[in-house]
Amino acid sequence: MSKKAHRQPHSAAGRERTTDPDKLGLERLIFFSDAVFAIAITLLALDIRLPAGGESPSNAQLLAQLLGLWPKYLAYVVSFLAIGTFWIGHHRRFKFIRRCDRGLLALNLLFLMVVAFIPFPTSVISESGNRTATIFYALTMILGGLMLAALWWYASWHNRLTDPGLDARQVRRQFVPMLLTVALFVLSIGLAFVDENLARFSWLLVVPISRFGYRG
Amino acid sequence: MSKKAHRQPHSAAGRERTTDPDKLGLERLIFFSDAVFAIAITLLALDIRLPAGGESPSNAQLLAQLLGLWPKYLAYVVSFLAIGTFWIGHHRRFKFIRRCDRGLLALNLLFLMVVAFIPFPTSVISESGNRTATIFYALTMILGGLMLAALWWYASWHNRLTDPGLDARQVRRQFVPMLLTVALFVLSIGLAFVDENLARFSWLLVVPISRFGYRG
Amino acid sequence: MSKKAHRQPHSAAGRERTTDPDKLGLERLIFFSDAVFAIAITLLALDIRLPAGGESPSNAQLLAQLLGLWPKYLAYVVSFLAIGTFWIGHHRRFKFIRRCDRGLLALNLLFLMVVAFIPFPTSVISESGNRTATIFYALTMILGGLMLAALWWYASWHNRLTDPGLDARQVRRQFVPMLLTVALFVLSIGLAFVDENLARFSWLLVVPISRFGYRG
Amino acid sequence: MSKKAHRQPHSAAGRERTTDPDKLGLERLIFFSDAVFAIAITLLALDIRLPAGGESPSNAQLLAQLLGLWPKYLAYVVSFLAIGTFWIGHHRRFKFIRRCDRGLLALNLLFLMVVAFIPFPTSVISESGNRTATIFYALTMILGGLMLAALWWYASWHNRLTDPGLDARQVRRQFVPMLLTVALFVLSIGLAFVDENLARFSWLLVVPISRFGYRG
Repeated sequence: MSKKAHRQPHSAAGRERTTDPDKLGLERLIFFSDAVFAIAITLLALDIRLPAGGESPSNAQLLAQLLGLWPKYLAYVVSFLAIGTFWIGHHRRFKFIRRCDRGLLALNLLFLMVVAFIPFPTSVISESGNRTATIFYALTMILGGLMLAALWWYASWHNRLTDPGLDARQVRRQFVPMLLTVALFVLSIGLAFVDENLARFSWLLVVPISRFGYRG
Repeated sequence: MSKKAHRQPHSAAGRERTTDPDKLGLERLIFFSDAVFAIAITLLALDIRLPAGGESPSNAQLLAQLLGLWPKYLAYVVSFLAIGTFWIGHHRRFKFIRRCDRGLLALNLLFLMVVAFIPFPTSVISESGNRTATIFYALTMILGGLMLAALWWYASWHNRLTDPGLDARQVRRQFVPMLLTVALFVLSIGLAFVDENLARFSWLLVVPISRFGYRG
Repeated sequence: MSKKAHRQPHSAAGRERTTDPDKLGLERLIFFSDAVFAIAITLLALDIRLPAGGESPSNAQLLAQLLGLWPKYLAYVVSFLAIGTFWIGHHRRFKFIRRCDRGLLALNLLFLMVVAFIPFPTSVISESGNRTATIFYALTMILGGLMLAALWWYASWHNRLTDPGLDARQVRRQFVPMLLTVALFVLSIGLAFVDENLARFSWLLVVPISRFGYRG
Repeated sequence: MSKKAHRQPHSAAGRERTTDPDKLGLERLIFFSDAVFAIAITLLALDIRLPAGGESPSNAQLLAQLLGLWPKYLAYVVSFLAIGTFWIGHHRRFKFIRRCDRGLLALNLLFLMVVAFIPFPTSVISESGNRTATIFYALTMILGGLMLAALWWYASWHNRLTDPGLDARQVRRQFVPMLLTVALFVLSIGLAFVDENLARFSWLLVVPISRFGYRG
C-alpha cells in the first residue's frame, strides 16, 4: 500500500492528508482548538450545583432551590454563547487560513489560554453579581476578542497564511464583528459603573453582532 | 505541493477537505458536537463519589457504601443512555446534511447547550429522587428533543442543507423517533404525579424508541 | 461542488469522506470513542490532591505529603495503563471493522459506559485499599473486557462488519488478549481473598498480555 | 458505494483513510494524544477558585480576592505554556512520523501519562510556592521531556517509523529543543536551592527554547 504511494508521487494521493506536513499541522491546530473550546464550554455546567446540606428536601423546597439557582443558569447561558461565539469566530477565520507557522501556533495558544480561562470569571459572576465581577468578566472577553483579532491580523497580513485568492476587502471585513464585540464589552464596563444589570444585559448584543459579516 | 493543487483545480484535489470551506465548516461542527457529547457523557461519572468522612472502612462497611450508591449508578446509566441516544440521533440526522450555514451553527449550539447541561439534572435526581427532581430531569430531555427536531426541521426544509437525493418521506421519518422521545418524557411528567418511580422506569423506553426508524 | 461529485461517480472523490454515510458513521463512532477514552484517562489525575488544611507546609512537610500520596499515584498509573490497554484493544479491533450498524453503536456505547466509569473504582481503591475495593476494581475491568469481546464477536460474526479479507483464524486470534485479560482479573479476585496487594500486583500482567497477539 | 470500492482496488481510493490500517492507527494515536493535551490544558483552569466562605463580598473585597489569586494565575499561565510547548513538540515530531507500531503506542501512552499528570504539580505549586513544590514541578517537566525524547529516538532510529526522506541531521536537530528544555529544568532544580522564585522565573526560557529549531 505505502509502496504504491511512493511510486505515484504525482497522483491525487500525493496530496493526501498525513503525507503533507503543512496540512497535518493546520488540521491538528484546528482540532486541538476545537477540543479546547468543547471542553471549556462543557465544563461550564460543572459550576451549577445544589447547595450542600439539607439531605432530603421536599418537592417545594427542591423547586425553590432549583429556581434560586437562576444566576447560575444565566451565567451558564451567557458564557456558553460567549464561548460559542468565539468558536464561530475562530471557525470563520480558519476557513480562509491555508497554512500554519510558528507564530500562528503561538497566537492560537494564547487565544485558547483566554478561552479555557472563561469558566473562572463565569463562576465569579454567578456567585457574586457585583460591579467588580462584571468588569472582571468583561475584561476577559475583551482580551479574548483582541487575541482573536491579533491572530487574524497575523495570518492575513499580506496573505501570509491565508488563501491567496482572498482580497483586502474580505480580510478587513473579518475584523468588523471582532472589533464590535470588543467595543461592546468595553462599553459594558462603562455601563457597569451606572448599573451592573444593565451592563450584563448589554452582553446579549453579542448574538446579533456575531451574525454580522457572516457572508463576508 | 500547494502550488500543484492550484494548477489542477479540476482534479479530485479541488474537492479536498481543507480547501473546501463548506465541508470544513460541517466537519468542524460535527467534530465540535461529538467532543461536547463525549465530555458531557464522561463527566457523568464524576458525580459518583463515596461519602467523605470515615477514613478506613472495613470490607463490609465499604461494600455497604458501594451498594448504597445505587441511585447514583442508576442515574449514571440512564443519563449515559440519554446522552448516547441524543448522540445517535444527531449522528443519524447529520448523515444526510451536506452543508453548514449560520442557522445550523446557532441551532446546533443551542442543542449542545442542553446536552452539556444534562449532568446537572442527573446530579439532582441522583441526590433527591422526588417529584420535582423527576420533572426537572424530564423537562431537560424534552427541551433537548425539541432542539434536535428544530435543527432537523431547519436543515431539511426544502432540502436547505440536506442531500438533494433525500425525498420528503425520508425527511418525515427522521422526525418520528425524536417526537416519540419527546412524547415519552411529556407523558412521564404526568406519571410523576402518580408515582415518581413509575415515571423514571418509563424512561427506559427511550432505548426501543431510538431503534425505531434507524433504517429510515 | 457537490454537483460535480454526482457527475463523476467513478472518480476518487465519489468515495470521499463526508459523502459516504456509512464511512462517516464509522468515523464518528471511532472519534467519539477516542474522545471518551481521552477524557476518562485525563480525569484520573483530578483525584490526586493534597490534603486540605495545613496552609503553608514547610519543605519537609510538603515532601512528606507528596510521598504519602503514593497510593494515589499507583492507582493513577494502574488505571492509566488499564484505560490505555482498553484503548489499544478498541483501536486494534476497529482496524478490521469497515462498517457501522445499530448493534455496533449500542455495544460500543455500553463498552464506553464501563470505560467512563473507571475513574470511580480508581478513586475507591486509592482511598481504601481493602479487599472490597480490590474486587470492585477487578469487576469493573472484567465487565469492560467482556463488553469489548462482545463487540468484537458481534462485528466479526460471519464478517458482518469486518473486512471481508479477514479469515477466521485472524478473527479468533483477536479474542485471545481480551479473554486473557478477563481471566487475569477473575484470578485476581481469588487472590484478593489471600492477599489484596498480591491481587493488585498481578494486574501489572495486563501490560505483557496486551502485547500478545498485536501482530494477529 | 462500498461495492464499487471493491471493484476498483487499484485506484487512489485504495489508499484512503479508513481502509489503510496503518494510517488509521497513526491518525487515532495523534487524535487521542491531541485530546489528552486539550483536556489537560483546559482542566488547569478548574484549580482557580475564589476562597469559599464570605457570601456577598463588596466590590473592594472581591477585587482584593481576585488580585490575591495571582499565584494561581501565574501557575495557570506557566503550565498552559508548558503543556502547549509539549503539544507543539509532539506535533513537530509527528510531522515526520509515517507509521505506528506497538512500541510507539506504548511510549506515547507513557508520555501522555506525564502530560495528564501536570495539573497536579501545577496545583501544588500554586498553593505552596516553596522549594519542594518547585522541585516537584521541575521533575515532572524533566520526565515529560525525557519521554518525548525517548519517543522520538524510538521512531527515528534507522528511520524505523519516520519518513524515509528524513536525513540523519534533521533527526538529530529534533533532539536539540527537547534536550535544552530538560537541561533548563535540571538547572532550575539547582537554582531552587538558591532561590525558588529565581528557579520559577527561569522556566519562562521554555518559550524561546521551543522556537529554536522549528525550521529543522
